[in-house]
Amino acid sequence: MILVGEKINTSLKGVTEAVENKDVDFIQNRAIAQADAGADYIDVNCGTLIDAEEEGLAWLVETVQKAVNKPCCIDSPNPYALAAGLKVHKGKALINSITAEKERYEGILPLVKEYQAGIIALTMDDEHGMPNDAAVRVDIGVKLISELKHEGVPINDIYIDPLIQPISTNGEMALVAIDTIKGIKTAYPEVHFMCGLSNVSYGLPKRALINRTFLVMCMLAGLDGAIMDPGNKKLMANIKSAEILLNKDEFAQNYLKAFREGSLDC
Amino acid sequence: MILVGEKINTSLKGVTEAVENKDVDFIQNRAIAQADAGADYIDVNCGTLIDAEEEGLAWLVETVQKAVNKPCCIDSPNPYALAAGLKVHKGKALINSITAEKERYEGILPLVKEYQAGIIALTMDDEHGMPNDAAVRVDIGVKLISELKHEGVPINDIYIDPLIQPISTNGEMALVAIDTIKGIKTAYPEVHFMCGLSNVSYGLPKRALINRTFLVMCMLAGLDGAIMDPGNKKLMANIKSAEILLNKDEFAQNYLKAFREGSLDC
Repeated sequence: MILVGEKINTSLKGVTEAVENKDVDFIQNRAIAQADAGADYIDVNCGTLIDAEEEGLAWLVETVQKAVNKPCCIDSPNPYALAAGLKVHKGKALINSITAEKERYEGILPLVKEYQAGIIALTMDDEHGMPNDAAVRVDIGVKLISELKHEGVPINDIYIDPLIQPISTNGEMALVAIDTIKGIKTAYPEVHFMCGLSNVSYGLPKRALINRTFLVMCMLAGLDGAIMDPGNKKLMANIKSAEILLNKDEFAQNYLKAFREGSLDC
Repeated sequence: MILVGEKINTSLKGVTEAVENKDVDFIQNRAIAQADAGADYIDVNCGTLIDAEEEGLAWLVETVQKAVNKPCCIDSPNPYALAAGLKVHKGKALINSITAEKERYEGILPLVKEYQAGIIALTMDDEHGMPNDAAVRVDIGVKLISELKHEGVPINDIYIDPLIQPISTNGEMALVAIDTIKGIKTAYPEVHFMCGLSNVSYGLPKRALINRTFLVMCMLAGLDGAIMDPGNKKLMANIKSAEILLNKDEFAQNYLKAFREGSLDC
């Protein structure tokens, strides 16, 4: 699994203040904790700051990368903010995210090409918005992959987000996301998938339980990346056990390492 | 999910002594605990007693059914032992299990018909034994269902066991079981599936973690029954959260009931 640590986001408590006050320690401690817990990318998002998003993202990228030897997932729908972050980023960044919406697609595609970044692509377009139908999402995803490939983006740099919506408002939404993954994986077995999990449980109690059960189902369907808190021990234990069951952990090396470190004790 | 409580089995500590000593309280307490925890059937197995299996199964069925208003899953490959248990059973029993092996099939089929029992059918035959190939298991399962239906057994009484084998000896075995479920469900969407879980984790540490992650994957594939300990709170919480994600829990009724009862606190 490719893990993107989600904890540096101004929608989370304390992060807005940390960005506004340029609190280097707060941000770096959070980056280090996530890297130590197994994050492959550190997500940086200051979308709530609006006017200060460009400056904020650039500062976050620099601050994070001074503390950890990890790439960032630069998280914004705004091409100017993404560009500000990408400009100071070292190594191969991940951009979160493009869609098939014309304006967003045309705004973000040049950045993907210029910086040779990985790109998270949401299965949305202008005609359908966020479609409720898995078949429509699959069509949008397949079209996005085809167009990105045509533009020279390597398939290995594309991460499809199947869109996670709450089961509390529509009981089919978990299955729609899962069927979206299955359908796109059938067309492009080598593409990556990446999504947040927590939307699925919105409005229900014991959300963490639902989120981690959902993650296991998504992994069986083909999900190989998640935007999550790598400090969530129960979620990480589920990932380790799912990987061994899916025969993606040769000789159970990762599972046994986690066991020896005590990180399955949860 | 259709839950079969697995705790009355002479291979488990204390049960052999209880059967040999006709310890009614031990057996009945175990039956009541499982029924209270949500078992739909109480499995009875005294296969380790060999010479006393017939008498033992009959005594177990009577003893269990005096304590709980639940049917039994009568668990033996031996038609004579099964017959002894079925003869004294009240209501519709479940037989565990038939296979496509000629001698076993011909020995057990008459009991299924005579007692109109539900039947667990293992995807094994004389030619392949326990095949490692999902496609072969699917063929055997489809053939078994077709033959049982031809004999007048209703599809709703058939529970296919996809055979759970350890991933520690062959990393593909979890996926083989999952693909077996998927393949047979494609051919017969209305058939039930039923299996034990714990074999999958044999030889590895933290087996309960692997077993409950595996159960979630199997449920996504189509498993709707399990032979398990309904007193395992973490496993039960996984089932409740999986059912809501699979849209099999209308208005989240069961999930919210479990939450209110505190049984998701684990």
